[in-house]
Amino acid sequence: MFFVEKLAILGTGLLGASLARALKKRGLVKNISAWSRSAQTRAKCAKLTDVFNEVCESPTEAVRNANIVVMCVPTANIPELAREISQTLDDGAILTDVGSVKSDICEECAETIKSSKADFVGSHPMAGSEKIGPDFSDADLFEGRPCFVIKSNCKSKTSVEIITEMWKSVGMQVYNVSASEHDAIVARVSHLPHLLAGTLCVASSKYNEELRKYVGPGFRDTTRVASGSPDIWDSIVFDNREEILKALKDYSVELNALINDIEKIDKSAMGTRLRSAKIFRDSIK
Amino acid sequence: MFFVEKLAILGTGLLGASLARALKKRGLVKNISAWSRSAQTRAKCAKLTDVFNEVCESPTEAVRNANIVVMCVPTANIPELAREISQTLDDGAILTDVGSVKSDICEECAETIKSSKADFVGSHPMAGSEKIGPDFSDADLFEGRPCFVIKSNCKSKTSVEIITEMWKSVGMQVYNVSASEHDAIVARVSHLPHLLAGTLCVASSKYNEELRKYVGPGFRDTTRVASGSPDIWDSIVFDNREEILKALKDYSVELNALINDIEKIDKSAMGTRLRSAKIFRDSIK
Repeated sequence: MFFVEKLAILGTGLLGASLARALKKRGLVKNISAWSRSAQTRAKCAKLTDVFNEVCESPTEAVRNANIVVMCVPTANIPELAREISQTLDDGAILTDVGSVKSDICEECAETIKSSKADFVGSHPMAGSEKIGPDFSDADLFEGRPCFVIKSNCKSKTSVEIITEMWKSVGMQVYNVSASEHDAIVARVSHLPHLLAGTLCVASSKYNEELRKYVGPGFRDTTRVASGSPDIWDSIVFDNREEILKALKDYSVELNALINDIEKIDKSAMGTRLRSAKIFRDSIK
Repeated sequence: MFFVEKLAILGTGLLGASLARALKKRGLVKNISAWSRSAQTRAKCAKLTDVFNEVCESPTEAVRNANIVVMCVPTANIPELAREISQTLDDGAILTDVGSVKSDICEECAETIKSSKADFVGSHPMAGSEKIGPDFSDADLFEGRPCFVIKSNCKSKTSVEIITEMWKSVGMQVYNVSASEHDAIVARVSHLPHLLAGTLCVASSKYNEELRKYVGPGFRDTTRVASGSPDIWDSIVFDNREEILKALKDYSVELNALINDIEKIDKSAMGTRLRSAKIFRDSIK
């Protein structure tokens, strides 16, 4: 059973604030301290007195005496934030993050944490929404969703077990994989759909802006993720560049094969294609 | 205000049964007769006594004395069904359909109807779901959704106005366009998303079937439409082949440009791309 005296959330956007809510709702933490780079967000968090016990002006202040520290800031800022707090972390504290790309982050954070008495374990809870900020935080955001906890790069197996328990305790299905396995998987299940949805929007708007009037639920669902923050996505794309390029090229091969089937009026190949797509999609819970 | 004495629904799948429900719920029709090719579906419809006044064994029987006849069968079967009933249609009756491709259907049906005293007006209500059959029928399925009513190929403008009113009366936003304009639009807002979603499922399953374990809401939404019936989609693809090929090739150009930006680490081009995608997506209600 997961329980912790003090947990610090650095970065109280949708994910950070939802994790705080989820742990508090389930009685799994006594105190939660919070920090956000934005004064406006800190002010919002200060009003959420049932969620956050203290809201701090600096990350070093927030992590003092915390047993677990969760960095919920954009991927590009994680290594720097880890360096900033590493010497303030408690002996035995565990630092984790929610970054959606893991190889570089896990390597840099492990290096940073080496000289401290804390440990680092990379996490990637695959939950979220195109909505951002603590106003949309939801104690049940993580229920039933997959989460990766990276088994490589940490000092102790116990740290991996504790962080695994934390995500399980808020309802997640946790997978322990290496950082490189993680990056190959998410390039395909998360980054690729985002880039394809974005490309569909770009192609549509170039054809005719007026197309927006005619879209139905199919187009709307297929492109929903393209509403995500371009800044966050820009950073993800270049952090996971190699795996994303492989995934995009695999997709492009299939797309050209599809175009070829339609050009040749190969109904049998087309039928096989649509049926195998349906079988894969229907197998997803 | 739309009102009709007798309306016939030929093909009582999700769309046909939902239209019957929608009109009955709003008190816009006195009698609805129904026919389905499947004996099982006819038996289900016979139990829906608040929706259908009579369920017939043949389409010719169902259309007798009907003021409006709506063909809700798969696209490929529409012209043949129109030929089957054309000589039984009442003087002044209006025949319409819900096919998602219009140029060929409108041309063939107009030709069939020429020698009768009825008129034909093509329709395409863009509502639906991956669920099929009358069991999922919903009186509010059409609310707020776009619908095309084809202004070309009919004998009288009044027929276009009446069919336009019918779809408006169940909550749809109706657009009057030509059959070729329609086919170019739907290739891009409906057929293209479906084929891209299917291709993503095919590429994912070829990479590793196990990917299904890790998918989050982004992948799920982006691929939802790939669960649609392969038979219906197979027929749509080849009926609207020219426009779909144009749309796929436009998409492929954008996809290659995206791959190029990522390969060159062109962050500025990538940022512009993601931002323009978001602007287009956010402009959709």
